[in-house]
This record gives sequence, C-alpha cells and structure tokens, in this order.
Amino acid sequence: MSDYKLVFHINENDRWPFTLRSVHNFVRAGEGNRAVVVANGGAVRSFSQLEADPNRMARIRGLEAEGVDFVVCKIALDERQVKEDLIPEYVRVVPAGIVEIAMLQAAGYGYVKA
Amino acid sequence: MSDYKLVFHINENDRWPFTLRSVHNFVRAGEGNRAVVVANGGAVRSFSQLEADPNRMARIRGLEAEGVDFVVCKIALDERQVKEDLIPEYVRVVPAGIVEIAMLQAAGYGYVKA
Amino acid sequence: MSDYKLVFHINENDRWPFTLRSVHNFVRAGEGNRAVVVANGGAVRSFSQLEADPNRMARIRGLEAEGVDFVVCKIALDERQVKEDLIPEYVRVVPAGIVEIAMLQAAGYGYVKA
Repeated sequence: MSDYKLVFHINENDRWPFTLRSVHNFVRAGEGNRAVVVANGGAVRSFSQLEADPNRMARIRGLEAEGVDFVVCKIALDERQVKEDLIPEYVRVVPAGIVEIAMLQAAGYGYVKA
Repeated sequence: MSDYKLVFHINENDRWPFTLRSVHNFVRAGEGNRAVVVANGGAVRSFSQLEADPNRMARIRGLEAEGVDFVVCKIALDERQVKEDLIPEYVRVVPAGIVEIAMLQAAGYGYVKA
Repeated sequence: MSDYKLVFHINENDRWPFTLRSVHNFVRAGEGNRAVVVANGGAVRSFSQLEADPNRMARIRGLEAEGVDFVVCKIALDERQVKEDLIPEYVRVVPAGIVEIAMLQAAGYGYVKA
C-alpha cells in the first residue's frame, strides 16, 4: 500500500471528535500515512478547554505521539482571546492557519474538511 | 472542454440533497467528468433509510447508472450499527473512507466537501 | 516565501464572515497569494442581501480590489430565484460552480471549505 499525506482542516469546535476519529483511522490504516491537523476559526477554542477535558487531551497527545502534527492559527487564538500559554508545547502555533493549509497542499498533501 | 475528476466527501446525513445535486451538476456539465462520492461519519445513516426514501434511492441509483461511484466507510457503518446488507450492491464498502479520499486525491482527483 | 493559490468554497450562507476573514488572512500573508471564492448552494443568497448589508458589500468589494475573484453559481441562483441583476458587476456568474472548483484544482489551486 502506498503512503498518503492529508491535511485535516477543522474550523468548528464541535467537529473535534469526528476529526480525531478520522485522523486515527487514517494513520492506523498505513504506517507511512502522514497527517497534519490545522485548527482555525472556532475550533481553536478547544485548546482553552483541554485542561477540563482530559479525554480529548489524551487523544490529541496520543495521536501526536504517533506522529500526527497539530497546528493552530494564531489569528484565530487572538480573535477569541485564547492565551497562547494554554496551547500544549507539542502543538505548533502558526501566524495564519490558512497559509499552512495552502502550503501543505502545494507540497502534495490532500485536503479533508472535518 | 477538459475532463475533471472530483471526490465528493459527505460526513453529515443532512447534506445528501446538496451533495447529490452537486454531483448531478458536475457530471452533466461534461461527458468525461468523473465523480466519486465517499460517505463516512453520520452520512452513512442514509443507507439504513434508503428503503424508506425511494426518491433518494432513485437519485443515487440514477447517478450510479451515469457512472458515479458511491463509496461507504465500513468503520462508520460499524460505529452506527448500520448493517452492511442494507447497502445496495452498487455501493462499494471500503475499510476506511478517509483512506479512499486520500488515495483519490493522490490519483489526481480534486476534493469537494458537501 | 512562495506564492500560493486557493479556491475557497462556500455553500452555506452563514459562513460568509468566516470565509471573508480567511480570504483576508490568506491574501495579506503574501503578495503573490491568489484567492478565488466560489459560492454555490445556499451561500448565493448573500448576493440578494448585499444592498441591505453595506458592511459585507464593502468587505467583498475591498477583497476584490486586492485581486480576489468572486464567482457565483448560476444553477444555485436560479434554484433560489435570486435575480442575476442583483449580482455586482465585479462578481463572475458561471454556469456551474462545482465545475469551476474542479477546474481550479486541476489548475493547481488548493481547496478550502469554509
């Protein structure tokens, strides 16, 4: 089986469960599969709630340990006054999530909207 | 006019009408246009309701007759306890819909989220 | 920094504010970045309401002045009986938005769903 690359775009906070399941299904389907999750818009709220949601925290952490990249949009954090120090250190904060999404597709990643 | 290839991703059950109209508009716009519909998440519920919805059944069947591929995610079926024998024989059940979506994009298909 | 190309697909009318912010973030991130917004489905309703919403009108106009293309699906307009003469002259009406989305991706554009 070939190896695939996908960027998962999530911009609504209630789509996290579906997104994390999709990412999980994708990475367990092939050892070489590569996933990047880019959160912008309302989806960044989740990161101010992770402390209160140990299950979700554990799922994100677990996927990260399997090689999944999590990326969060700084513009979206600022718009919602989510402090950057709430973001776990294994999550990458980028100036603009939308540019990351464009960059990954230009680099050969497929796209999935959660 | 050139021929285009699109994978239509549907993961919410209430997006079927929009999705089927989009697919229809796409395939009637060019003889060589090629569409694959991949259903995962909550969108697979529709297949347990097709018997009760002859209109939708007919639209799906009609598009299939025009060459559109319908693909359903087995993980999503299992999660919702939708029995596989409810799936019409012209619909392809795949182990993970998300992998199909990655594969089609890697093969040059564009992506559309319903 | 490289230049990126994105097609923004919007098919729900309440996603306009998010879409316009995303487009804005994308084009201001790089001078060479190129964005096309394709509206179909319920998102075309916005164009029958622009007169009543000068803020949105101004945002769309402003982005257009920065080089963003706005494209509207004629099938979607007709389905909702939105008269074509409500569409500002700087917005391009195409026979089928879905074909435009396929075409742009075939031409190397990445895809974003609002």
